[in-house]
Amino acid sequence: MIVVMSYRASDDQIESVLVWLERSGFQIHLSRGVERTIIGAIGDKTRIGDMGLEAMPGVEKVVPILQPYKLASRTFQEEGTIIRVGDLEIGGEVIHVIAGPCAVESEEQLLSTARLVKEAGATMLRGGAFKPRTSPYSFQGLEEEGLKLLAKAREETGLYIVTEVMDARTLPMVAQYADILQIGARNMQNFFLLREIAKVDKPVILKRGPSATIEEWLMAAEYIMSGGNYNVILCERGICSFENYTRNTLDLTAVPVVKHLSHLPVIVDPSHAIGKWRFVPSMAGSAIAAGADGLLVEVHPNPSEALCDGPQSLTPENFTEMMINLRKIAGAVGRKMTSQ
Amino acid sequence: MIVVMSYRASDDQIESVLVWLERSGFQIHLSRGVERTIIGAIGDKTRIGDMGLEAMPGVEKVVPILQPYKLASRTFQEEGTIIRVGDLEIGGEVIHVIAGPCAVESEEQLLSTARLVKEAGATMLRGGAFKPRTSPYSFQGLEEEGLKLLAKAREETGLYIVTEVMDARTLPMVAQYADILQIGARNMQNFFLLREIAKVDKPVILKRGPSATIEEWLMAAEYIMSGGNYNVILCERGICSFENYTRNTLDLTAVPVVKHLSHLPVIVDPSHAIGKWRFVPSMAGSAIAAGADGLLVEVHPNPSEALCDGPQSLTPENFTEMMINLRKIAGAVGRKMTSQ
Amino acid sequence: MIVVMSYRASDDQIESVLVWLERSGFQIHLSRGVERTIIGAIGDKTRIGDMGLEAMPGVEKVVPILQPYKLASRTFQEEGTIIRVGDLEIGGEVIHVIAGPCAVESEEQLLSTARLVKEAGATMLRGGAFKPRTSPYSFQGLEEEGLKLLAKAREETGLYIVTEVMDARTLPMVAQYADILQIGARNMQNFFLLREIAKVDKPVILKRGPSATIEEWLMAAEYIMSGGNYNVILCERGICSFENYTRNTLDLTAVPVVKHLSHLPVIVDPSHAIGKWRFVPSMAGSAIAAGADGLLVEVHPNPSEALCDGPQSLTPENFTEMMINLRKIAGAVGRKMTSQ
Amino acid sequence: MIVVMSYRASDDQIESVLVWLERSGFQIHLSRGVERTIIGAIGDKTRIGDMGLEAMPGVEKVVPILQPYKLASRTFQEEGTIIRVGDLEIGGEVIHVIAGPCAVESEEQLLSTARLVKEAGATMLRGGAFKPRTSPYSFQGLEEEGLKLLAKAREETGLYIVTEVMDARTLPMVAQYADILQIGARNMQNFFLLREIAKVDKPVILKRGPSATIEEWLMAAEYIMSGGNYNVILCERGICSFENYTRNTLDLTAVPVVKHLSHLPVIVDPSHAIGKWRFVPSMAGSAIAAGADGLLVEVHPNPSEALCDGPQSLTPENFTEMMINLRKIAGAVGRKMTSQ
Repeated sequence: MIVVMSYRASDDQIESVLVWLERSGFQIHLSRGVERTIIGAIGDKTRIGDMGLEAMPGVEKVVPILQPYKLASRTFQEEGTIIRVGDLEIGGEVIHVIAGPCAVESEEQLLSTARLVKEAGATMLRGGAFKPRTSPYSFQGLEEEGLKLLAKAREETGLYIVTEVMDARTLPMVAQYADILQIGARNMQNFFLLREIAKVDKPVILKRGPSATIEEWLMAAEYIMSGGNYNVILCERGICSFENYTRNTLDLTAVPVVKHLSHLPVIVDPSHAIGKWRFVPSMAGSAIAAGADGLLVEVHPNPSEALCDGPQSLTPENFTEMMINLRKIAGAVGRKMTSQ
Repeated sequence: MIVVMSYRASDDQIESVLVWLERSGFQIHLSRGVERTIIGAIGDKTRIGDMGLEAMPGVEKVVPILQPYKLASRTFQEEGTIIRVGDLEIGGEVIHVIAGPCAVESEEQLLSTARLVKEAGATMLRGGAFKPRTSPYSFQGLEEEGLKLLAKAREETGLYIVTEVMDARTLPMVAQYADILQIGARNMQNFFLLREIAKVDKPVILKRGPSATIEEWLMAAEYIMSGGNYNVILCERGICSFENYTRNTLDLTAVPVVKHLSHLPVIVDPSHAIGKWRFVPSMAGSAIAAGADGLLVEVHPNPSEALCDGPQSLTPENFTEMMINLRKIAGAVGRKMTSQ
Repeated sequence: MIVVMSYRASDDQIESVLVWLERSGFQIHLSRGVERTIIGAIGDKTRIGDMGLEAMPGVEKVVPILQPYKLASRTFQEEGTIIRVGDLEIGGEVIHVIAGPCAVESEEQLLSTARLVKEAGATMLRGGAFKPRTSPYSFQGLEEEGLKLLAKAREETGLYIVTEVMDARTLPMVAQYADILQIGARNMQNFFLLREIAKVDKPVILKRGPSATIEEWLMAAEYIMSGGNYNVILCERGICSFENYTRNTLDLTAVPVVKHLSHLPVIVDPSHAIGKWRFVPSMAGSAIAAGADGLLVEVHPNPSEALCDGPQSLTPENFTEMMINLRKIAGAVGRKMTSQ
Repeated sequence: MIVVMSYRASDDQIESVLVWLERSGFQIHLSRGVERTIIGAIGDKTRIGDMGLEAMPGVEKVVPILQPYKLASRTFQEEGTIIRVGDLEIGGEVIHVIAGPCAVESEEQLLSTARLVKEAGATMLRGGAFKPRTSPYSFQGLEEEGLKLLAKAREETGLYIVTEVMDARTLPMVAQYADILQIGARNMQNFFLLREIAKVDKPVILKRGPSATIEEWLMAAEYIMSGGNYNVILCERGICSFENYTRNTLDLTAVPVVKHLSHLPVIVDPSHAIGKWRFVPSMAGSAIAAGADGLLVEVHPNPSEALCDGPQSLTPENFTEMMINLRKIAGAVGRKMTSQ
């Protein structure tokens, strides 16, 4: 890291910083300029976050140089990670589409959706069993009953199951049914939950928090990986900005950026980012062109009757049409999708 | 709510929306303009969030009219809520300062800080026992040992204890020691946790999420209140914006806005919002002038040795000086602070 | 528009609002609910922005219903606008790539770039002659000399010229040389400039301001159109957000949203949005998949020697490779690009 | 500045950067770490913005160390600048309130407002003569007629005149009437205008752009100062964020931050930032507590009839009441306001 001393820092203040750094095991390069004294400190990057250096008198700022994450970094693993779910590979040549309703509502709703998305080319089924929501007066999910329906849909269609885990207590139950565990955007920095998920032997989709920088997102992945679970799939789902025509602002540039910084697979959820179904197909194609390894898309047999997030759900017809177009874009960027 | 139909909505589409609304128990006002047909729907506001209306063909947008929260709204309770903690009243004439270190590190660190902030006029002590952090490689907190030290500090100084609860499993343990439970910004929409806290008979400080609108923040308070715990204290702690000189952007306007919309007390945490101790005293005074009922401020006996958030911690000397100035500002806006 | 009265609005306050609206020529629908009185007002939408209604006692909020723009709206013109520049059509089947250096630096720099981008398939040449910049100590542009070089490059290569106009005084000079005038992001709401450009008979590329909502952007287009110039091409170039790995956040969802709301063509400038050349090719392809009608891309023969924005400029080799890939994506979404 | 080379940078790439830096006159410190090679470059900071270094192969990032502004920096001028307008001093002990309507509408409107704000303790009168606005269909200002009315109000009341200059062509006319020229938020980076204003011998209020970082804002001040006009007053007026209950997010922390980084006076415009008069008085007091040297506040004799920004205007009664409270807060922070 680089420590920039303030213009009027005294020799004593500089000396104190040097002592502090040496005591902490850093190797030091001192550079006294006309306007500023700058101290380069070389050492164990993983401690940087903890340090009170910026609180020392005479210090203007501390500039970290190295990435604070290691396991998630492409610096130390050049080839992209491929995550296996049954016979599928996420992060390889094939782009996977994970589709389904926001919430599991009933057997008929889920199974009819599952059949339709399977037929259109989806390889995994999504659906929420726990839906604690912004309003305490809204539908809160079918809980274990919903998980059972997901398992039933898997049995019938062969689609793998992706479902969200919301807290540590229900994690064992959810892990019993799911093929991939999803961590929602609001839980991206729920470190208690990350710690528990790190111990589970299932791949994890880690959604980006709406106010999380790319670095914070990769640090959350590092958190899970450092606990022993290396199968992390990152999911961009929109960040907050002043624009409010769409629910969030889909940050598709994050896809090539994350691919540059990390070896982990990246997928995109245009449905939650945008909040309006009308724009989902365009942005799904746009995500593939940006380099995404997969998509998470909401589909509901009857969006206007959905108990959750109807306005952002595609009808089965719209989904099928979208899939035809996505296949073409995937081909144009040298990727594949499963045949219908 | 108001349903705005699109310019080219057909009569059939309008009819379908009317049928939908009537079936859902709404009373309807239809207004056919030259450019748009607009449907006013009057009824139970608590269901609005769930509705798939925007997914219906021909609907351009749905504009909610009523606030989605009731228990937290000043519409239904004109006088401000006063929350009692022992002999203290939060939300009354007296402005309370809650001070202490980010993390409980040791008996000496905590007790020396407690004595100093007590002497300077603080009425409550803050300190984190669980510190799962952005980096998995950082200090993670003393856990129950930390809670015991907080209890010891209370015993010695008479300061009430504010500490964060991070998940449902550790809630019973934390509730046993704390006088006020704090919900961190990252957990503002952790509805599993909110649901559990709603059942505990302790006041709650609910920090605003860095990407939460004021309405979402009040909905989180509503969540706790609807579960039975009415003693919610809102805490503004900075929101995310493009400005990155400070860690977050302290949204002080939220203080009078929340006071206008809600009857709940509001406090401000300038330390976390800003991330640099140098600007904390000015903004603490600014928060009082904006109408805050209290402050949450980080103080550490030796910020450059702090295991957590040193750069934003005041030294005891800076804290004492700040308190002298805050007292004057409190007086200027017709409020009081406890005498030193 | 809808006027929502506050919970405690008196009958007199409601009456005053009704009188005000009637006097202003609105037709009124009054709806007294249990919690709120709501007044629907139907009339000339173009005046809404001016009204002091929200300042009247008892008014809680005023909700506009109609879009504040007319000429730019797809409501009143269903088919997309096609803008002709010589023999080219912008907004039609063909996607146009406008390429060139940030600033015109020298004859050799400009002409060599022009030849290279022409060969790779660009149809227009971009280059700035006026470069007043963030730092007063930076290169400020070649001014008229730069415009002459652009004209020379057009003569030699047949590429049409796109260049930025920065203020009303230099507009006549710039308009003499340029085929398309560009309004920079910082000038999107420079209404003095918009008013003058409205009188010029040249197409205009209107860049979105970094803090402009889609509605404000369309209002700026309306400003130009209402002054008589209907040939407005909208250009998404990134909006501000908390993420600072990239310079701005490219809001590609704005492409289908603007296409839905307006009939005007939309192009995308990934170079300025991102600020790092490495991610430009992916996002250029992503923009085409999102539905963009064209691209604005920075190319420099030697980016590390560029006097302006080198880090975001592609080398001619990278540009040529990108163009090959863009052609495939254009084909996948049913569009064309000019043959190499 | 610090140049961080990428993990896999070759020796040749490092060598090229060294050559580049030496050729550009930098002094170099090379530090080869295990993970990264880091190059410290010491030299003329004013050229940093221009450099294409980040475009060189093997360069991961370039970290600027020094502030890019000099004349505006407190590093080189420790004591705060005091700007004189007639017998007034801005930046000294006295806090000045600049009040008046958004737009000059008529003689009666302006003069009655001027008398009232004068009586309540304002020392300067604000009012816009040019009002090109978001909507082309809105009132656009009285232009020179408005300036003459401002001059008349000055004659009658002794209040100094603050009015906005919108472009270079009308600058001479505006400068003839105004005591202080205001540069609006949208023009903060209109460098053509800044360059012209730098040549005028009148103090300038420079409003912060809604998407401008504090550094960009200070660079705009530097732009004016480097052209010869040192009398720059900075004005915080809200930045864009996701929160949309208020028009913008008032960033009061910017006040002490700017005071730390720069010696220039800082004032605050709560009216434009918030957009709702109800919250203006609280935030005006909050701004003073944060350390502001003055306020810019909208007052209209009849806000609901205002041709511009009525919802954010205080009535004369509200303004008078606010001034009484502000005086108390000013006293509490050791400042003064002119006696009524």
